Amino acid sequence: GNTGIIVLAATNRVDILDSALLRPGRFDRQVTVNPPDIKGRIAILKVHARNKKFAKNVNLEGIAQRTPGFSGADLANLLNEAAILTARRKKEAISSSEINGSIDRVIAGMEGNLLADTKGKRLVAYHEVGHALMGTLLQNHDPVEKLTLIPRGQAKGLTWFTPNEEQGLTSRAQILARIIGTLGGRAAEEVVFGDTEVTTGASSDLQAVTSMARTMVTQYGMSTVGPIALESQQRQPFMGGGRNPGADFSDETAYKIDQQIKEIVTHCHKQAVQMISENRIAVDRIVDVLLEKETVSGQEFKELLSEYREVPSKYSYTPKIA
Amino acid sequence: GNTGIIVLAATNRVDILDSALLRPGRFDRQVTVNPPDIKGRIAILKVHARNKKFAKNVNLEGIAQRTPGFSGADLANLLNEAAILTARRKKEAISSSEINGSIDRVIAGMEGNLLADTKGKRLVAYHEVGHALMGTLLQNHDPVEKLTLIPRGQAKGLTWFTPNEEQGLTSRAQILARIIGTLGGRAAEEVVFGDTEVTTGASSDLQAVTSMARTMVTQYGMSTVGPIALESQQRQPFMGGGRNPGADFSDETAYKIDQQIKEIVTHCHKQAVQMISENRIAVDRIVDVLLEKETVSGQEFKELLSEYREVPSKYSYTPKIA
Amino acid sequence: GNTGIIVLAATNRVDILDSALLRPGRFDRQVTVNPPDIKGRIAILKVHARNKKFAKNVNLEGIAQRTPGFSGADLANLLNEAAILTARRKKEAISSSEINGSIDRVIAGMEGNLLADTKGKRLVAYHEVGHALMGTLLQNHDPVEKLTLIPRGQAKGLTWFTPNEEQGLTSRAQILARIIGTLGGRAAEEVVFGDTEVTTGASSDLQAVTSMARTMVTQYGMSTVGPIALESQQRQPFMGGGRNPGADFSDETAYKIDQQIKEIVTHCHKQAVQMISENRIAVDRIVDVLLEKETVSGQEFKELLSEYREVPSKYSYTPKIA
Amino acid sequence: GNTGIIVLAATNRVDILDSALLRPGRFDRQVTVNPPDIKGRIAILKVHARNKKFAKNVNLEGIAQRTPGFSGADLANLLNEAAILTARRKKEAISSSEINGSIDRVIAGMEGNLLADTKGKRLVAYHEVGHALMGTLLQNHDPVEKLTLIPRGQAKGLTWFTPNEEQGLTSRAQILARIIGTLGGRAAEEVVFGDTEVTTGASSDLQAVTSMARTMVTQYGMSTVGPIALESQQRQPFMGGGRNPGADFSDETAYKIDQQIKEIVTHCHKQAVQMISENRIAVDRIVDVLLEKETVSGQEFKELLSEYREVPSKYSYTPKIA
Amino acid sequence: GNTGIIVLAATNRVDILDSALLRPGRFDRQVTVNPPDIKGRIAILKVHARNKKFAKNVNLEGIAQRTPGFSGADLANLLNEAAILTARRKKEAISSSEINGSIDRVIAGMEGNLLADTKGKRLVAYHEVGHALMGTLLQNHDPVEKLTLIPRGQAKGLTWFTPNEEQGLTSRAQILARIIGTLGGRAAEEVVFGDTEVTTGASSDLQAVTSMARTMVTQYGMSTVGPIALESQQRQPFMGGGRNPGADFSDETAYKIDQQIKEIVTHCHKQAVQMISENRIAVDRIVDVLLEKETVSGQEFKELLSEYREVPSKYSYTPKIA
Amino acid sequence: GNTGIIVLAATNRVDILDSALLRPGRFDRQVTVNPPDIKGRIAILKVHARNKKFAKNVNLEGIAQRTPGFSGADLANLLNEAAILTARRKKEAISSSEINGSIDRVIAGMEGNLLADTKGKRLVAYHEVGHALMGTLLQNHDPVEKLTLIPRGQAKGLTWFTPNEEQGLTSRAQILARIIGTLGGRAAEEVVFGDTEVTTGASSDLQAVTSMARTMVTQYGMSTVGPIALESQQRQPFMGGGRNPGADFSDETAYKIDQQIKEIVTHCHKQAVQMISENRIAVDRIVDVLLEKETVSGQEFKELLSEYREVPSKYSYTPKIA
Repeated sequence: GNTGIIVLAATNRVDILDSALLRPGRFDRQVTVNPPDIKGRIAILKVHARNKKFAKNVNLEGIAQRTPGFSGADLANLLNEAAILTARRKKEAISSSEINGSIDRVIAGMEGNLLADTKGKRLVAYHEVGHALMGTLLQNHDPVEKLTLIPRGQAKGLTWFTPNEEQGLTSRAQILARIIGTLGGRAAEEVVFGDTEVTTGASSDLQAVTSMARTMVTQYGMSTVGPIALESQQRQPFMGGGRNPGADFSDETAYKIDQQIKEIVTHCHKQAVQMISENRIAVDRIVDVLLEKETVSGQEFKELLSEYREVPSKYSYTPKIA
Repeated sequence: GNTGIIVLAATNRVDILDSALLRPGRFDRQVTVNPPDIKGRIAILKVHARNKKFAKNVNLEGIAQRTPGFSGADLANLLNEAAILTARRKKEAISSSEINGSIDRVIAGMEGNLLADTKGKRLVAYHEVGHALMGTLLQNHDPVEKLTLIPRGQAKGLTWFTPNEEQGLTSRAQILARIIGTLGGRAAEEVVFGDTEVTTGASSDLQAVTSMARTMVTQYGMSTVGPIALESQQRQPFMGGGRNPGADFSDETAYKIDQQIKEIVTHCHKQAVQMISENRIAVDRIVDVLLEKETVSGQEFKELLSEYREVPSKYSYTPKIA
Repeated sequence: GNTGIIVLAATNRVDILDSALLRPGRFDRQVTVNPPDIKGRIAILKVHARNKKFAKNVNLEGIAQRTPGFSGADLANLLNEAAILTARRKKEAISSSEINGSIDRVIAGMEGNLLADTKGKRLVAYHEVGHALMGTLLQNHDPVEKLTLIPRGQAKGLTWFTPNEEQGLTSRAQILARIIGTLGGRAAEEVVFGDTEVTTGASSDLQAVTSMARTMVTQYGMSTVGPIALESQQRQPFMGGGRNPGADFSDETAYKIDQQIKEIVTHCHKQAVQMISENRIAVDRIVDVLLEKETVSGQEFKELLSEYREVPSKYSYTPKIA
Repeated sequence: GNTGIIVLAATNRVDILDSALLRPGRFDRQVTVNPPDIKGRIAILKVHARNKKFAKNVNLEGIAQRTPGFSGADLANLLNEAAILTARRKKEAISSSEINGSIDRVIAGMEGNLLADTKGKRLVAYHEVGHALMGTLLQNHDPVEKLTLIPRGQAKGLTWFTPNEEQGLTSRAQILARIIGTLGGRAAEEVVFGDTEVTTGASSDLQAVTSMARTMVTQYGMSTVGPIALESQQRQPFMGGGRNPGADFSDETAYKIDQQIKEIVTHCHKQAVQMISENRIAVDRIVDVLLEKETVSGQEFKELLSEYREVPSKYSYTPKIA
Repeated sequence: GNTGIIVLAATNRVDILDSALLRPGRFDRQVTVNPPDIKGRIAILKVHARNKKFAKNVNLEGIAQRTPGFSGADLANLLNEAAILTARRKKEAISSSEINGSIDRVIAGMEGNLLADTKGKRLVAYHEVGHALMGTLLQNHDPVEKLTLIPRGQAKGLTWFTPNEEQGLTSRAQILARIIGTLGGRAAEEVVFGDTEVTTGASSDLQAVTSMARTMVTQYGMSTVGPIALESQQRQPFMGGGRNPGADFSDETAYKIDQQIKEIVTHCHKQAVQMISENRIAVDRIVDVLLEKETVSGQEFKELLSEYREVPSKYSYTPKIA
Repeated sequence: GNTGIIVLAATNRVDILDSALLRPGRFDRQVTVNPPDIKGRIAILKVHARNKKFAKNVNLEGIAQRTPGFSGADLANLLNEAAILTARRKKEAISSSEINGSIDRVIAGMEGNLLADTKGKRLVAYHEVGHALMGTLLQNHDPVEKLTLIPRGQAKGLTWFTPNEEQGLTSRAQILARIIGTLGGRAAEEVVFGDTEVTTGASSDLQAVTSMARTMVTQYGMSTVGPIALESQQRQPFMGGGRNPGADFSDETAYKIDQQIKEIVTHCHKQAVQMISENRIAVDRIVDVLLEKETVSGQEFKELLSEYREVPSKYSYTPKIA
């Protein structure tokens, strides 16, 4: 019955809160805290940058641009990592090199040991170049930042893209471009080494691709199944489930979804294979460079590619479904 | 064995109470408390308005009209929000501006940052104008109150309708109108930007549409499946489930339901696309106004529309299923 | 090992007791307490009526007749309600008016506010008259006691029937009559307002109808599926489930059940629609009376109907399945 | 590590014991205690009869014969009930009348109130006579002991059979005879009152019939499905389930089982209907007697029947499946 | 951090241990303790025989041969049982009679009362002779030790085989022989008493037969389904289930498994029926002997059979699938 | 709020951690610890070898090569086992014989008793030679280290392969070679002993084969089902499962997966049978040697084989799918 006392609570599983808790008189105001947008990230970075020394070349806007989806704690963590790295390198001020290293580490884990220079490493190189080729030539795809053969976390190689933070809306063409881009690695393996030498390395790519295709069909109404939401019902974690009208569907509908997913993925896969084949000579050349330099930036990639294509631009290929 | 002591208990999950608890001799009287109707809301507002100062233009009946489904606590909360807003604006009395702002906040969450003026924002504008066009021209649809590009909660833009509180009964035509109205946003995206530029923004619209169509088929007997209740059985949360005769159905029946849902949604989608196409010039014009003014009232919308249609009334289009 | 101590226990979930508990030597005697029959109810009422004053017109047999299925506690509660109502009305003795009000309240909840006189109220009126027409003209249907537009609990209007307590046995014809009667409300909406104006108000009617049709098919062997019990197996709530031979069935059998249910309901629905159509003029007239008087007794209904039909008797229509 | 201490434990859910508990060194000896056979029951009755006075006409062998499946505790309970009844009737010694009454009570529950003499009671009478006719004329069926219209427990009437305790083995012909016998009640309703007057009273008969037919198909290899055990797998109540090879089957096999069950039941139902029809005149007569006398013994039934059939013996009809 | 302390733990549910527990540094060494082989059993028997007196005819190797699958505790228990039996019989030393009696009791439970000499007992006799005939004449079948009409545990009669402990490997032909042998009992019932007199006594035989056929199809790749393991996935009892690649299969595959099982069982059943028919005269004769002597040894069985067959050897019939 | 305290936590079930735990501000840095690669293993062995005496022939690099997938604790355990074995053999220094024995024990369990020299043992010998033949002649298969008839753990015989640690990537051809190799044992049984003598011993081989084929189809996109990840959804162990887009598929898709698996396994089985048949004479000869010597090294195997084949190399056969 007291006034002057305010009860605050936070959750990141709003979907499983008992609705009785959310009624006015209990928690009156609900404030949705979305991850900060670019302006927010700059502001947050400014706060955490206060008692740290930075080299002149460091620019907080640049960091903010590379970190969409980062929370405040992520950004604080990022600057801490950079400071630790700077200390370890016995530098006086945090330079952009430390910051980039920290971003990479935060997103993809710590660097591992370099692979020995075997056929396996060459295969990884073709895989990454495959991803990067799609990212460079495909309309609607995020631009390539760099590709590298330095393992991080569980990955043997990595291709980085500069994420495009277009206000949370993603178009059908963008999703298709991402699917093709993600299939680029496997496509390169197939074109270069043949069907039997294809490896298990693409397993997480295939998972990502299938999941993107599935959301197109079941959540975003972007297939011939029509403008319907078909997600298998999120069973309410608490008892009974109340007045929720449910969303189960029949096995026949499940099969139509499966077919749509397969059609989208197969079509995109064909397009990826075709792009690799049409640029085979450039791909071979860039793989050699990558094996030598371990890391190639998006800009370098574009330049290497320009030796073989007149206008290596994002408009060379358009993702589409027949 | 004492008399003179009365035991009261309240629940909002009557559906999961053990029936043994509800027998006379335990809880003798059960009082169902429905959300207050308009008269009730006016009375409740009067109580909570007592020790607050209001500007002359504030009229409690108007607030009650905009808040169907609000509980007493919701209404108390609403006036508190308005008082806080008034204090923050350093006004002496709560004016209708504060009240409207509070209603918006209570229903849709807090205002977010304005979107930058990109293609993404334009797409959101077309989406909202799509909803509003349906609401204005479609018979049986709730009238448009306003449409806005100021984000609230997770939404990038919002179209508000004045809810029609016709005593809890909703007709088949009204549900159809709501489905078409909800599909209006996506339909506008498609007509204006084309199939590949369609975005993920309509995802919650599609969920709402599918859910409405499903209840038509499975609960209200409003499809060719016939006057049958086909809801997948609400499993009793407690043991055994007693004498409940069950309501599971076969996969073939599930497929018939799926087909009915698809037919309803597809038909409504076609109608929405047609309406956008037929009013394309007006839509383009209103989008420009909306981008400029950020918010357009239902009345302004109607006036803008009337420059392009002779009689922009709710009777221009009738929702129907072939 | 003592004698002279008797252990008594009661449950109303005999179906989930561990059978080990029920063996002699544990609970030797099991006494099934069915809800009291009419003689039992009269005797119970006499007990609870002892220290209450009744008006002369009150007759306990009549109360017993209106309350089949009531337990002793229900009946005690009923008289208490009546006494409270009497006190509130400042009467000296409980009259049949208080008792009837209490029965209504106990069965259907407290009275709500009258609906405003809109199209919605008219629709409710037609819905109730639809139920009542079936109850009056259909052989094997319980007779109509009254129909009213005074909301109770969650219902906008109600039609009361005098239940027929024929010793626990219900015939196929009686179930069919109940199904047709329950569909009468929706049928009236359809005939009078047309397919698109049909409302969500019939949702619980459809649920009841589907459930009745399902028991005909799966429990009572009253369909072409044959004299088989097909209930989906009541999973034993305790571990293992012992020697229970199970009763699951295949999806194809589930579909046959679905079809039988649909056939029964569709047939009954047609019959209801036909009855409304054939008595349309009378229905319109009675709706006007009901809207004016709010409540119409079964007898009045019959008299109103007799102005349009020569012999408005229960034998005008026979429920049947082709 | 002590000797001389013996640990005893008992369970009647051997199927759900953790097998680790049953290994030697834990519980060395496992003694299965089956319900006593007739010799055992006589011995048990002698023990419990010791300090009770019996009338001369009481013969313990007779009691043992009527109580197959009774455990020792059941028999003790039975004699206690008889003693209580005797005391209540102010008799000096327990006579066979009290014993029979107690057996009836233990098996079927306490007597209820007599039904009023309505069409409902007549229907119950035909139902019981239907059962009894099958029991009297059908080869392999247990002989009729008595039929009665005195309700017990939840039953409105009862037909008692003298169980045949043939050492735990039941033949296919016996199961078929039981199915036909159980369907006899419903068959009589149909023949006499017609399809629409058929009631819900046969619901537990149908359940029993379906369950018997199911075990024939899935456990005893007595159908065209072949000598296979097809029971849906008893899920192990404890974790994992170990080395159990499982017994799930496909939906198509489930459908074959459904069809076999339906075929068996339908065939038996036809035979029951035919038997009622062929003995209709006798049935009508015996119903009149039953309604008058409330209870008819198996012997009386046979004599009444012999007025209409030359040799009313158990060999008049043979249960068979085409 | 101490040395010199060794932690030992034992489980017989290795399949449900959390793998984290099994990592080196936790439990370094894992020692699988299989049930002892024949050498192990002799050694164990020697230990437990130390302080017990045995008659001269007792030979531990013989006991070991009859007890494959027995654990050390089982064997200790066995000798204890024999000692108790010897004491009860007031003998000085344990003779092979007590030992055999104890083995029988440990495997099949305690002796029950003899069946009365009815048709039921004759049916049991034919059932057991059916099993024994298969065991005697069928190649790859374990040889018959004895057959008996003395009930043990829940069984009305028993046929004992001398198990063949061929190093844990079982061939397809052996499994088929076991299936035919197990079906021999039911087959004898059918041939002698006819289809309608077939009893419920074969229920556990059918279960065993179905389970053996199922493992042939789903675990051992011994059917036309091919060399694939199709067991329905053992759901991991602990959370998540980690990286387990799963093994669910479709309903169509489940049906193929069902068909294979049915084909195997049906074929074996035919072979059993044929063997009974071809040896009907001998079977009738041996049943007479068995009914008279209650127990017949495998050797006696063979001699009785030799009166009717020239060479009653295990090579008379070969189990095969068309 | 203190600084200077660092909280460390380790898990090997990262997949089931609540994501809230992993957010920066909670556990800032996540370090994935993969099992050590060969360099890591050498370094670890050096640490644990410090205070142990080794014979001159011991070379830590060799141990590291034979132990891919071993964790640090595994390696420590390995050296401990070797030290214990050395002590037991009363040697002064650990020689490579003790180390190899320890590796075998750590991987496959303790040695069991030798099998008696029966047909069963011969069958096991053919089974192992079958595996070894595939490993020796099949391109892409890991080379054979040794094959032995000394039982370990639950296995009656074992064939050891030198694992190839190609940086975590496995090609389609390698998986196919493993499947054929695993089927080699059963194939040898079939070719030599015929279809009816095939045993249950291959059961775990079939399980491994089915599981490998399944991952090819559902995880690695290595079948005609296409580049899609089709794993049955890993149900989130915690409540709700959040925004996970799901991965269920229809029964028809499940059947396509089943068919693909069957096709892969059947094709590989044919190839294994063909390889055994074409090298039958050599196989018979090597089995004789193996039965005599109990253990045969990969090198000896190759030499024995070279007496019958000109160039017994890994390139004699190529795994392929039609």
